[in-house]
Amino acid sequence: MRRSERIALISKTLSENPNKIISLNHFGQWLGAAKSSISEDLDIIKNAYKVSGQGELTTLPGAAGGVRYRTKRSAKQINAFLEDLCNTLQDPKRIIPGGYLYMTDIIFSPEYSGTIGEIFAQLFIDDEPTHVLTVETKGIPIALMTARALNVPMVVARRDSRVTEGPSVGISYVSGSGQKIHNMSLAKRALPENSRVLIVDDFMKAGGTARGMRELVAEFKAQVVGTAMVVTTAEPEKKLVEDFTTLLILEDIDTGKGQIEISINDKLMS
Amino acid sequence: MRRSERIALISKTLSENPNKIISLNHFGQWLGAAKSSISEDLDIIKNAYKVSGQGELTTLPGAAGGVRYRTKRSAKQINAFLEDLCNTLQDPKRIIPGGYLYMTDIIFSPEYSGTIGEIFAQLFIDDEPTHVLTVETKGIPIALMTARALNVPMVVARRDSRVTEGPSVGISYVSGSGQKIHNMSLAKRALPENSRVLIVDDFMKAGGTARGMRELVAEFKAQVVGTAMVVTTAEPEKKLVEDFTTLLILEDIDTGKGQIEISINDKLMS
Repeated sequence: MRRSERIALISKTLSENPNKIISLNHFGQWLGAAKSSISEDLDIIKNAYKVSGQGELTTLPGAAGGVRYRTKRSAKQINAFLEDLCNTLQDPKRIIPGGYLYMTDIIFSPEYSGTIGEIFAQLFIDDEPTHVLTVETKGIPIALMTARALNVPMVVARRDSRVTEGPSVGISYVSGSGQKIHNMSLAKRALPENSRVLIVDDFMKAGGTARGMRELVAEFKAQVVGTAMVVTTAEPEKKLVEDFTTLLILEDIDTGKGQIEISINDKLMS
Repeated sequence: MRRSERIALISKTLSENPNKIISLNHFGQWLGAAKSSISEDLDIIKNAYKVSGQGELTTLPGAAGGVRYRTKRSAKQINAFLEDLCNTLQDPKRIIPGGYLYMTDIIFSPEYSGTIGEIFAQLFIDDEPTHVLTVETKGIPIALMTARALNVPMVVARRDSRVTEGPSVGISYVSGSGQKIHNMSLAKRALPENSRVLIVDDFMKAGGTARGMRELVAEFKAQVVGTAMVVTTAEPEKKLVEDFTTLLILEDIDTGKGQIEISINDKLMS
């Protein structure tokens, strides 16, 4: 196999397996090439990715070593994506009677959720999450894509405990907005003790659900390493959780004028 | 930029955008190369993918033309994946009190759901689905990954209608197993008329939920082009839907002996 053919296959494999360490021997055996040739191939791929802002290749030495691909967007690239997302979401047709914002098509789209998941992974990768947690339903696509980019499992808390998942741990929590009591539960076997959990959801208002997820994580003797939201409302200013990260801020929905005002969180990349 | 660097970037872009037609001009402008050079690059990538069973590159002529990547596994590759999946699922530790099979970790794993989604896409791509439909909750990761591989949107029916999604269409259906009445609804704006819908879910017993989804699709004046399940129980033999495709068949769970018996659907590739 020629170098250019090997490069096509290595590049494909790496980008399909983000944050996974793949040994040079694996590539060598698969492609019938010496380790030194694979090493040269990787230098070419690494450089091509770097100069075109297509992510980062890292070679890790040692017995458990190999090469690892991670998505890595510049602040400028992330900003351009978020500007596009803002413009899409500010379409007045997205106002739902009652003053809600329709964003299901966006968060359920493989393309948007894939990019958002990669951005969340990039923001929290240094905190070394071992699991991504969300609560059903709308957070699932983004949580899955975040888990994919981090190469860790996703776990999903249910609104009720399901008999088909065996023993579970449940909590009750008060939604900040409605002052209603809700339940949330997770199968005991889903989350090991001492896990490092990244909480992900699509939308946060008062933060009651996010706080519920934190309490659930504590019940599993695990640790929350971050809380990532796609959209958070500006009001109420004081949320029930501290230390969360949001991509966008929903400033206002004016149902009378038919206007939606969304801004990019300017503290995101600082 | 050298040919080998261009190939690294083109291969990455194609594999990250399955079933999307990308023009040669796009690559030419991005990578600063003539269309004829890009065309030669694509021949190399195409051949490398082909000889190593890594999917299919097709060049489409005309003004709307370009190059398109699709995952394509051989019957042997699919069989090897399904054998591994069978072995994983037959672990006696997966028996849940009540005689259920725990498979949430598998269907929520980005790696397994990604591969299953690619297989579903491959099986139904010639039926030209325009949307992938599932019902919350457990089918979502596989539906999302199927939608990703097909490059179409995912839509998710809810168990209750949500105020934040605007006007919705709902149906009632009887679950085949429990003889209980359930509800299922979908936002009106989520699915256009004349859509070609691929129904995806993780598990089917009697088929009541799948039939409910079919009825919901009919309410939208759309058309079902296929129904794809990961696991279907052998009993009851007669399901409430005809013409479904399943990867695996759950033959038996013997809670006394602690044994799970799962087989590969041998009609899958025929």
